[in-house]
Amino acid sequence: MKAYKSLSREELESLQQELLKAYEDAKAKGLNLDMSRGKPSISQLDMVMDILDVLNSGSEVKSENGMDCRNYGLFDGIPEVKRLMAQSVGVKEEHVIVCGNSSLNLMYDAVSRSVTHGVCGGTPWCKLDKVKFLCPVPGYDRHFAVTEHFGIEMINIPMTIQGPDMDLVEKYVNEDASVKGIWCVPKYSNPQGISYSDETVRRFAGLKPAAEDFRIYWDNAYAIHHLYEDKQDEILDIISECEKAGNPDMVYEFFSTSKVSFAGGGIAGLASSPRNLDDIRKSMVIQTIGFDKVNQLRHVRYYKDLDGLKAQMRKHADIVRPKFEAVLAVLERELGGLEIGSWIRPRGGYFISFDAMEGCAKEIVAKCKDAGVVMTGAGATFPYGKDPRDSNIRIAPSFPTPEEMEAATDLFVLCVKLVSVNKLLETM
Amino acid sequence: MKAYKSLSREELESLQQELLKAYEDAKAKGLNLDMSRGKPSISQLDMVMDILDVLNSGSEVKSENGMDCRNYGLFDGIPEVKRLMAQSVGVKEEHVIVCGNSSLNLMYDAVSRSVTHGVCGGTPWCKLDKVKFLCPVPGYDRHFAVTEHFGIEMINIPMTIQGPDMDLVEKYVNEDASVKGIWCVPKYSNPQGISYSDETVRRFAGLKPAAEDFRIYWDNAYAIHHLYEDKQDEILDIISECEKAGNPDMVYEFFSTSKVSFAGGGIAGLASSPRNLDDIRKSMVIQTIGFDKVNQLRHVRYYKDLDGLKAQMRKHADIVRPKFEAVLAVLERELGGLEIGSWIRPRGGYFISFDAMEGCAKEIVAKCKDAGVVMTGAGATFPYGKDPRDSNIRIAPSFPTPEEMEAATDLFVLCVKLVSVNKLLETM
Repeated sequence: MKAYKSLSREELESLQQELLKAYEDAKAKGLNLDMSRGKPSISQLDMVMDILDVLNSGSEVKSENGMDCRNYGLFDGIPEVKRLMAQSVGVKEEHVIVCGNSSLNLMYDAVSRSVTHGVCGGTPWCKLDKVKFLCPVPGYDRHFAVTEHFGIEMINIPMTIQGPDMDLVEKYVNEDASVKGIWCVPKYSNPQGISYSDETVRRFAGLKPAAEDFRIYWDNAYAIHHLYEDKQDEILDIISECEKAGNPDMVYEFFSTSKVSFAGGGIAGLASSPRNLDDIRKSMVIQTIGFDKVNQLRHVRYYKDLDGLKAQMRKHADIVRPKFEAVLAVLERELGGLEIGSWIRPRGGYFISFDAMEGCAKEIVAKCKDAGVVMTGAGATFPYGKDPRDSNIRIAPSFPTPEEMEAATDLFVLCVKLVSVNKLLETM
Repeated sequence: MKAYKSLSREELESLQQELLKAYEDAKAKGLNLDMSRGKPSISQLDMVMDILDVLNSGSEVKSENGMDCRNYGLFDGIPEVKRLMAQSVGVKEEHVIVCGNSSLNLMYDAVSRSVTHGVCGGTPWCKLDKVKFLCPVPGYDRHFAVTEHFGIEMINIPMTIQGPDMDLVEKYVNEDASVKGIWCVPKYSNPQGISYSDETVRRFAGLKPAAEDFRIYWDNAYAIHHLYEDKQDEILDIISECEKAGNPDMVYEFFSTSKVSFAGGGIAGLASSPRNLDDIRKSMVIQTIGFDKVNQLRHVRYYKDLDGLKAQMRKHADIVRPKFEAVLAVLERELGGLEIGSWIRPRGGYFISFDAMEGCAKEIVAKCKDAGVVMTGAGATFPYGKDPRDSNIRIAPSFPTPEEMEAATDLFVLCVKLVSVNKLLETM
């Protein structure tokens, strides 16, 4: 294929006519597809239905330490669920508490608690003039929404193929005491599917924060969400690395089973140092009478152990992988060599990240929508919804069928081509 | 029985010897009983076990509006569970959102949100010099813990048999703009079992708060927790009364099934005006990806409707009532006429409140503990754990068996007598 930018005005104009015609034809088909939400598909959820049989009216409902899971008590999780979750994300059991159904809620609460009460006895952020968070971009819109909600200033940090640009991270964290946190999705990042290299994790662990209450918000959302059996990313345990580097309290790690069992009907938890956990428990014991231990027990009885969990994630992968491959095949076939977009082939996670030519993302998403394909809003992967290059588009292949994903991507690439040609002609 | 205060020094001294002997004998028995926690008993939990059969791998898991309860979406509750919860607490369905497993968590979040973001666009409380809450006393220690945690000043409001002393409430709320809230358990109050009279509810509704962001925190924890079929308290719907009085936004009402299905494994919700709900949703949509809709569906499929719910609460009552009656029988038999303590015979709820002679509560609880009976800590029913009269003791009869409750109460009354005699002799 010939790069669009090497085409002459006449060639571009003729291409534009062709593409416009194709686009009108596509529109006429009346598509109604959604590539916007990173949610499990019906087949994935169906596959987990057996979890509802695990506990029934005849079940023993005590945890291994004798706690009646139907009653009050033990607000930070039953031991067997702590162990399983620790293994699944690769941290130590004693660093884990399991609570609630939503890791986002735990992140929100962590920020909220820091705003009202400070971190480990530090000044509450609501008493400070300025609080800043670093935001590797492109990133997860709901992270940015939390910090924006609390009036925290967000600073973009470009992602590299190894993880966030660590030179920049070190500069900000080590020099600016108003930088209190950084949002990270270290494994199969949202939306790029990048896993942080060992060097990146070690550079994180070795930070020398200007602010004592700086914390890394390590959202390990896709720890076991591999797409391939033979190509799996692994990352270092940041908490252990931080211990080794003399920064034991620098991380809050978050995880959940939202994309393992049921989205919203699963369990979530966090991992951190004993000192951080004590600090968190101090608020948590005021905040709640405890979390749903019946559901914790249900999960641990269902998955049994890490092998059980991995076995199920392989089945999930078998469902999810063909959708990713359908998207990637269309992207490669239709856009390869045109130099109007780039993407990364992820080995896990829930998204594919697409970078269009500068200034084209909004228009591509709008054109897709007009023809019946909903994408995540352009800009959503950046703080304040503002992609400074108007380039990044998040593709979420998990929910539709592979056939639907193919049809949706066919339209998507058509829109990419059309908008790119328009752009090139404009700027000629 | 002769009132202790009418006894002579000699009579008291001889009684003291008798009681000391009895106390030493009781201690030797090595009791190990707990009257401290208002939690459901094993029989109650066993009775609800069928709820675990309602959803299984063959179940339809869509809510009545077609929502797949296993996936993301619809973060404020499925319609049928909103309806059931609305009926159970006696509010309108459109005033209800259902979320999470813990009403305490909803209360904490409501306070926390007010601290960080203010109420309906008002000044965030963290920007104010002084925020105060009114606390009807005796009351629920976990309410007071939430406000103390946020540095909110708490003001004691004495309870009357009709509810909080409304003259005082009106004075504070209508005159002091730093008074932003009041904690209420309006039905079968914790710990006294008092239900607010219609006049009390109407006076609440008719408040003219000096602070626009004043809210009544109406913890309707025991809405359907009657002890008797033929003697049931009912209270007015405060939200409707507030609407009528021109104060539609003045109430946050909270409720849960913690003492209906499983404690911690149930569902919780809140009711409020559309304007308040919109304000809450604005934060909630940032805070969480949604709550456990599978458990919501499980609950509504199990109870079916209000009649189903009521039928089960009658069975709970059959289990709980004998325990209350065991306590009350011992109190009346052993302390009637002695004028060293008073108590209220509740028609519902989870507690009996006992008022000892001034200056005796701590010592009674300590003596009980030394002899193997754990009570709720004296003072716990007051803000900051400080009962100014050192008089109130909360008795929680729900968890032990009736026989255990009788044995525990036998010891309790012995301690009441002993400590009272000591006190009378001291002050003679």
